[in-house]
Parts: sequence; structure tokens; C-alpha cells
Amino acid sequence: MSQNELRKDYILDRWVVIASQRRKRPSDFSTVKTGDVKNTVCPFCPGNEHLTPPATLVYVLEDGNVRKTLENGESRCKDWIVRCIPNLYPAFSAENGQKPTRIFKSTSFHESMKALGFHEVIVESPIHGEHPSVARKSQLKLVINAIKDRFHYLSSKEYVKYISVFRNHGASAGASLSHAHSQIIATPILPKIVKEEAEASKNYYESEGRCVFCSIVEEESKSERFIWENESFTAFTPWASLNPFEFWIFPKRHQSSILEMTDFEVEKFAEILRVGLGGLKRLLNDPPYNLGFHILPESHYHWHVEVYPKLAIWAGFEKSTGMFINTVPPEDAAEGLKESFKLEEDALRER
Amino acid sequence: MSQNELRKDYILDRWVVIASQRRKRPSDFSTVKTGDVKNTVCPFCPGNEHLTPPATLVYVLEDGNVRKTLENGESRCKDWIVRCIPNLYPAFSAENGQKPTRIFKSTSFHESMKALGFHEVIVESPIHGEHPSVARKSQLKLVINAIKDRFHYLSSKEYVKYISVFRNHGASAGASLSHAHSQIIATPILPKIVKEEAEASKNYYESEGRCVFCSIVEEESKSERFIWENESFTAFTPWASLNPFEFWIFPKRHQSSILEMTDFEVEKFAEILRVGLGGLKRLLNDPPYNLGFHILPESHYHWHVEVYPKLAIWAGFEKSTGMFINTVPPEDAAEGLKESFKLEEDALRER
Repeated sequence: MSQNELRKDYILDRWVVIASQRRKRPSDFSTVKTGDVKNTVCPFCPGNEHLTPPATLVYVLEDGNVRKTLENGESRCKDWIVRCIPNLYPAFSAENGQKPTRIFKSTSFHESMKALGFHEVIVESPIHGEHPSVARKSQLKLVINAIKDRFHYLSSKEYVKYISVFRNHGASAGASLSHAHSQIIATPILPKIVKEEAEASKNYYESEGRCVFCSIVEEESKSERFIWENESFTAFTPWASLNPFEFWIFPKRHQSSILEMTDFEVEKFAEILRVGLGGLKRLLNDPPYNLGFHILPESHYHWHVEVYPKLAIWAGFEKSTGMFINTVPPEDAAEGLKESFKLEEDALRER
Repeated sequence: MSQNELRKDYILDRWVVIASQRRKRPSDFSTVKTGDVKNTVCPFCPGNEHLTPPATLVYVLEDGNVRKTLENGESRCKDWIVRCIPNLYPAFSAENGQKPTRIFKSTSFHESMKALGFHEVIVESPIHGEHPSVARKSQLKLVINAIKDRFHYLSSKEYVKYISVFRNHGASAGASLSHAHSQIIATPILPKIVKEEAEASKNYYESEGRCVFCSIVEEESKSERFIWENESFTAFTPWASLNPFEFWIFPKRHQSSILEMTDFEVEKFAEILRVGLGGLKRLLNDPPYNLGFHILPESHYHWHVEVYPKLAIWAGFEKSTGMFINTVPPEDAAEGLKESFKLEEDALRER
């Protein structure tokens, strides 16, 4: 298996994976449709484990307790309740005996490195349609714990500089399979957006003596962009929201990484995910969306989740300038989301 | 008409237009479809000039010569050959007596300014479907001259810091009307990507004594990413291409702005646009695409056009990290494009 390549733009600090492992020819694009996800045999449904690579983590239920296991051929066991597997078409992959990443410059304009890393899928439930917007809270807790487990494992790898956890919902938001799942990509460089966040939060910490995100959450909790909160988490629409109805979820307690979450906080995080994504579904008729975790284990950083509903198209202006147009003021978005989060909370309580 | 607002992210150098003028409610999104552009009455077709705001520039043909005019009520004349009009739903707009832009900080985390500027549409032909991929070269020359005219006019405005010229082709690439048209947006700040390009090219100029883009074009012309050239322009796929089959077009002669193009170069630019976009259509069955000009009248800058075919979806990973995955190596893309540009060139010559 040839290694994918990570390339840097001629002059911008912008990296792209040239994914030769997923290489496509012109004819592969002629049938591109933006409709629904295909309904063939689902490789993520129980009983179809042979259609996926062996699992990297499996949770099973044993005498009412969750047991993590990979022993005794259980990487393909059929009674799993959460299952992590390598992505069949990885953007980043490991090679045995590979040395840590090194940037290769063939000329001053052609920088590249091997796309070393990991690309995994977390199958969130044995139930095909148990997406976070409708999931049992107990199931969401399992998913969060599985993310923590894989994050912990992947963090220990020498050449891993960043771990991106994300979720694509709906075909037009890039989900190629409709079974409830998230993805984890571990990269050998710090991606641009996170790098800029890290630098800004470090500068703020050095000048103000506190976390910039703690300050932002404090201000936004009192603003007209506030949506909802529980004991441990706050949701609000960001001031310079790029997407209609975009919202962010922050832990109230300062913590740089999801590994710092207590069991109680895991419970509360499951709750805000359920209320938030259920509320989004309720307000906008189950819209496609993307969701990304921002996590960086540095003391001045503060992990959080950003949810991007896919209701508009980034076109020539956005792509060529890096400037954006959003037709829904975040204050208006917060008003709608506030109501639907509340309805979702009530519905959840009555069950 | 209330003014749109331009807002800066809490900590990132990332700006978004909060376009209240185009404000939408949740219910506006429930019927969003990604199918074909609607076929109602086309406001850009001749005879429907009353459906658009008065033109800002009109070309008419008079005794075989092109005449620019706006006099005598001709802003709604019906025998135009190219027509520029204000966008009916502008992201940026001017206000009479408005002072130059000033950044307003309500708190340290809430920076904004009025979205002062211009947002225009260039109707590229009286013929509904005369897109650049099939256009007469003579018509494309008119379009380029119209872009030059509007660029020149808008550049003279005090608060304009950047002028973005772009084109969206196909509904899934954000074109809301199918009549051949481009757009021009003049912004009161320098957008992120251009700002980073400008800084990098300035640094290179200071250390190497020449234009960084001239060096890049020189190297890529000899590489396996080279596609096609004529006397004045070169097309190649960029080394760290973000999009499958993305290609860039550069003038060979060093020039920072399109205003420096000679008549001969306008002719040659029309040719490479026709061959390039025709070749793209030929290779990939008329794919949706976005196209953006990068123009900055600073001596160390070098204007160019970037074409982004829309064949993949930017999802959770790309949106939350600013890092990208491209499944078509630019060297493979160049191979396919090289052949189809050549076929297009031959077909054009035979007409």
C-alpha cells in the first residue's frame, strides 16, 4: 500500500493530503449525484463485521457492565455495542517501522511529507439510525468514552501532532454511509485553524493570565447568542458564525482535552449533544451538518465542539478569498435554537 | 436599507459578512434542494431588464464598434451585448456620505465594521447559455474588458481594499441563476487568503529580488503539472491542489493587476479561458465549478485565476481543521486536462 502524501501550498501555510490511495479517474466523477446515501448492504450493521477491517476497539456488554475487548478474535465479534475500525480508505495511515515525519523539499516551492497517521471510524451504535439527535443518552456516553479511549491511544504515538474527531451527517454534508458513525483522523502536523487558535490563546494567556476561551464563554453566556446550558456545558452561536445556525459547545470548567472529563461531565456532555443535535433536527427538519471537536492538550487551550449545519454553499467568493457570507445573524439563530433545545429537553425528560 | 455587518472571529483573523439584508428564517431552509437551477423567467435575458436594478455599465454595438454607455436611460436598454448590474441581494453595499470603514470593538471579542463595498453581476452574454466553455472568443473579450472597466471604477473608491471577481457554475457550486454571469465584490478589508499571499510574495521579493509567482510559473511550466500555454498565459495544476482537477491560469508577463493587460493579452486571456473551461467541460461532463481571480495592485504581486471544479465535499475534517483531502493527484489531473485542452484547442481552430 503506497503512502499518501501531505503537501504544502507554494507560499500559504495550507496543507492538503494528496490521497493516492483513494485515487480516482475522470470517469469516476461523471456519475456524481448529490442525492441520498445509497442503500446497499450496510458494512456497519451487526452481522456484517467481515466487510470491515478488524476492529481497533470493541465495547461489549457483560453481566450488565461494559467491557472493552479486542482479545480472542473479538475484533469481529457480533454482539458489540460500540465498535472502532480503521477507515477502509484512509487519508492518513501508519507504516511499520516508519520514522517520525520529516518535511521533504524537492525545491523551495515543493514541500511534502508522508501522510503518516491514523484514520478510524467509530460505529456509534448497533442500531443503524441511532444518530446523536435521537440516541439514548446511555449510548452517547459509550460513544464519548470510546472517543476518549481512542484519543488516549492515538495521542501516545510519536508522530501524531493533532487528533481530529468529526462527524458528517447526511449525504450532502459528505457522509458516504448513513449508519450512525463518527471519524477520527490523527495527523503529523498541527492543522492551520487549530494552530492559529493555539497561538492566539497562548498570547492571550501570557498577556491576561487566563484562558481566552473561558473569557469568551463567560461573555457569550450573558449575550443574545446564548442558547442552553447544563451543570457542565454551555452552547451558544458564535459572534462571527460562518454557517447559518452554527453553534459551539464548551465545557464550563477549563480543560484542554476531553481526557480531563470526569464521569459526571461525560454524562452532561452526552446530554448537551443529545439536546443540541435533537434541537437542530427539530428546528430545521433534520438538516445535513458537520461537527468537529477542537482538542489540544496544552494548558492555555480549551477543548470544544463546533457544529456546522450545511444550509448554504461556499462558492467562488469564499473559496478564493477565505472570507465568508452568512445570511442568518447568529442572534437570530440563537433565538430559534433556544426554543428548540428547550422543547428537546422537555421531550427527553418526559420519556 | 440596513447595512450588512462584517464580523471578525473571536481570535482568528477570519471575517464573515452577517448578511441581514438577505436574512432568512428557519423555514426558508426546509425546502433547500441541491438539484438543478430553477427555470422561471430569467432576469438576465434580454427583454427582462426591468427585473434587475439599473445597470452600472452597458456595452452596445454601434456601426460594428463596441460603445460603453449609461446615458439616456440606456441602463435598461435592450440591445446590450454585455451588462453589469448591482446584485439584488448584495453582501456588500455603499451608502451615500458614508465615511471610510472603521473597526468597531464593543468588547475585545466582538469586532465588527459595516460591510461597505459593492456587489455587482456581469451578465456575460445576451445568450442565456453562452458560458465561457462554449462562448465565442469575441464575446469573452467583451466580458474581460467589462471586468477591467468595473475593476478600474471600483478601485477608485476610497474604502475599497480588495476586489474579488468570481464565477459560480452549476447549482451545486452556488449558482442561483443559470444565465451566464460572473460577480464582482469589493470589500473594505483585505481577505485572509490574499493577505497571506501578499505577505509571502512581499517577503520573497525582499529576499530574492523577484516575484515569487514568476518563479513558480517558471518551475511548473517544466513540471508534470503543466497543462497548456499560449503566447501570454500558462495553465497548470497547483502542487498542493485542494480540489480534484483544480487548475490555475497565470499571465506570463509579470503584472499585478488585470488593468495591465494589453489588448493582445486580453485576446490571449479569452483564448485560454475558452480552451480551459471548454476542456474542463469536455473532460468531466460539464462539472459544476467555482472560479476566482486573485488581483492585487502591488508591485510584488502577480494576478491569476484559480478554477475549482466541485467534485468533492468539504466535510467535518476540512471545516474544523483548515486541512484538506484531495483524491486526485494534480499530476494525474494535469494528464487528463492536457489532453482535453488540446482537443478543445483543435475543435476551436476548426470552427
